[in-house]
Amino acid sequence: MKVILTIIDGLGDRPIPELENLTPLEAARKPNLNKLAKSGVCGVMNAIAAGVRPGSDTSHLAILGYDPRVYYFGRGPFEAVGIGMDVDPGDIALRVNLGTVEKNFNIIDRRAGRIENVEPLIKDLNDIVLNGVRFSIKAGTGHRAALVLKGKNLSQEISDGDPHITGVKVNKILPKNKTSAAKKTAEVLNKFLDKAYKLLEGYPLNKERIKNSLPPANYLLVRGVGKLARFEPFNEKYGFSKSCCIAGAGLYKGIALVLGMDIVEVKGATGLPNTNLERKFKTAKEMTKVYDFVFLHIKAADSLGEDGNFRGKKEFIEKIDKASKHFLNLKNTFVVVTADHSTPCCLKAHSGDPVPLMITGPGVRTDNCFKFEERECAQKGCLGKITGLDLMPEILNLIGKNKIYGA
Amino acid sequence: MKVILTIIDGLGDRPIPELENLTPLEAARKPNLNKLAKSGVCGVMNAIAAGVRPGSDTSHLAILGYDPRVYYFGRGPFEAVGIGMDVDPGDIALRVNLGTVEKNFNIIDRRAGRIENVEPLIKDLNDIVLNGVRFSIKAGTGHRAALVLKGKNLSQEISDGDPHITGVKVNKILPKNKTSAAKKTAEVLNKFLDKAYKLLEGYPLNKERIKNSLPPANYLLVRGVGKLARFEPFNEKYGFSKSCCIAGAGLYKGIALVLGMDIVEVKGATGLPNTNLERKFKTAKEMTKVYDFVFLHIKAADSLGEDGNFRGKKEFIEKIDKASKHFLNLKNTFVVVTADHSTPCCLKAHSGDPVPLMITGPGVRTDNCFKFEERECAQKGCLGKITGLDLMPEILNLIGKNKIYGA
Repeated sequence: MKVILTIIDGLGDRPIPELENLTPLEAARKPNLNKLAKSGVCGVMNAIAAGVRPGSDTSHLAILGYDPRVYYFGRGPFEAVGIGMDVDPGDIALRVNLGTVEKNFNIIDRRAGRIENVEPLIKDLNDIVLNGVRFSIKAGTGHRAALVLKGKNLSQEISDGDPHITGVKVNKILPKNKTSAAKKTAEVLNKFLDKAYKLLEGYPLNKERIKNSLPPANYLLVRGVGKLARFEPFNEKYGFSKSCCIAGAGLYKGIALVLGMDIVEVKGATGLPNTNLERKFKTAKEMTKVYDFVFLHIKAADSLGEDGNFRGKKEFIEKIDKASKHFLNLKNTFVVVTADHSTPCCLKAHSGDPVPLMITGPGVRTDNCFKFEERECAQKGCLGKITGLDLMPEILNLIGKNKIYGA
Repeated sequence: MKVILTIIDGLGDRPIPELENLTPLEAARKPNLNKLAKSGVCGVMNAIAAGVRPGSDTSHLAILGYDPRVYYFGRGPFEAVGIGMDVDPGDIALRVNLGTVEKNFNIIDRRAGRIENVEPLIKDLNDIVLNGVRFSIKAGTGHRAALVLKGKNLSQEISDGDPHITGVKVNKILPKNKTSAAKKTAEVLNKFLDKAYKLLEGYPLNKERIKNSLPPANYLLVRGVGKLARFEPFNEKYGFSKSCCIAGAGLYKGIALVLGMDIVEVKGATGLPNTNLERKFKTAKEMTKVYDFVFLHIKAADSLGEDGNFRGKKEFIEKIDKASKHFLNLKNTFVVVTADHSTPCCLKAHSGDPVPLMITGPGVRTDNCFKFEERECAQKGCLGKITGLDLMPEILNLIGKNKIYGA
């Protein structure tokens, strides 16, 4: 039995007056998703708990069966792994923006004029060792990068350097508690950021940018610090021989990599509304020939919700529905479709409203829920209301892979 | 966004043959409550957990978001605070009946002939210090009072003095474990109760009562011992600027005060079936002009259930429905209506049956539940079945005030 777990990020929503008080999902034409719902068992899910507003990282950990209350110590490591960096349990990682500061460290631009490639600028910052801590840095997309600290006695309990606004000075990194680890980590990171500033400031590429009236990328604005926990590999935990992830955005690849999944790259998988849904769904289906478990992540429903673009969200869902035709009538495969959290257009933010969930596959208790919608799944679904941590046990149960508890 | 949380104490019930197998709530004419249900999202709730029979104190703590497994060490402190006593974290408080005992401490009357005002009798007992423990006592209604012990190393792990029946001797207070704190608390309390007996026995007012063939109020029957936990203030916990409580009964005011809410006194709010519901509901609505969060407590549905008076309970619910007209079509306000527990008339006691729950306000996922009833809310409500500890997160989520967990 194979499993395709499809997470449509930020799918859930609230009734929208302009859509006749339907949610974008309820308003969308979605014959394929509805066919799947009709052939499956439905319900609703709160990734963390009722009413709790999940982050993108914590919700995915919970859904994949890793309690974030145990395994989550900040987002940085997943982002760093997601762009191909080497992060080990205990390492500290941070997200980085290359920004522009004045001589007095006043921030002029948090994205250095949306500079497109920072790799040439930061390559000299790589592998610097200070007080026994090794710093690695790697470029992400655009002005973004990630920074990894390897060393003994490091802590994620430090403050952000990035104040998240311009017109103010950068923040010194401060320890959040009195442990020697937090103090040491803050100190050595401040030292590194100073050194980085001096190097970046004098860098010919930056001098050239100034000459061309472009803001120099002269400061590393760090945020999202985290420490990587030690995870039991996904395949071992659940008895899969191979599992993989298909995703556009780095965070989800990072989480999958940390858990020991393979990454299947799909051309045109951008994590944006223009992503190649057709190819992603088709690839997910094909990958069940090779993998026991395929984790398919679709990002843009969340971004459209955060923009408050309910028509865009509805249309994007309709595109997902078209691509979902690849999931109809699969043999020996359980198709799970759900979301990590709601992103109501009226809030333009993640929310704790439950998300719809459906599981189709041989032998499931099909119910009277014939539409893959927030309210229909809540009112008619046989799965009831579960949490993210319940999902993997439910899936393992249906495919007959869960271990007996007791005798 | 404002919130009115309405707790109808003991509202839930079981089908009653004389009401054509409907519950009092199902049998009641309640057009306004049903209108609210239709415009809102519904569900059912167990304050503590499925099947668990909650006390009045533990259920309210849970519903307001304070896990009683962490914050509950007995009822006494809430009762003491509710009648205006000063209780600090770590203090021990007990409920007191002024009763009548014979010379051999045999109890003749647990309420001293339902004596109406005990303040003149107990005022000399106030501020007595024994072994470094200061005793404060204050009259409640009728024969009732509360007793507070302030001192170092005190414990709530002691037995009741009140055997809850007459014709037997009063109980000596015993430590429930071997800690020095429990031993010390039992000892000093026994010493105080002896001293109080001697003072009360010789008190002219009591001699006068005997002369008038009234039982003297000569013994402090103590019960409901508790230690006050340290609570994070409600407003800080949830980011409200101001919150208030409207209640007739002392316990609920006590809980609200301990959590840092203001008490809004309403003339005619008695906590009895004769309470001025009209004025309580109207005041709750008006208070949303001043307060972010209004906790409205209605007591008598519980007492009527405990009397097994199902017709009275139905009629009282119909009066609540009339007063609920003030909650129709409110702007920028979430109206939450639920109960702390069921008090089925057939049991004449609290039960663990879930209670109906509805939340109305802008943007909620209205469902097909058009009646505010136990079974309708369970079968058609989109909120599903939640626990008391889930309620505040659900409310905060809907009003957009819950913090993100993760990033």
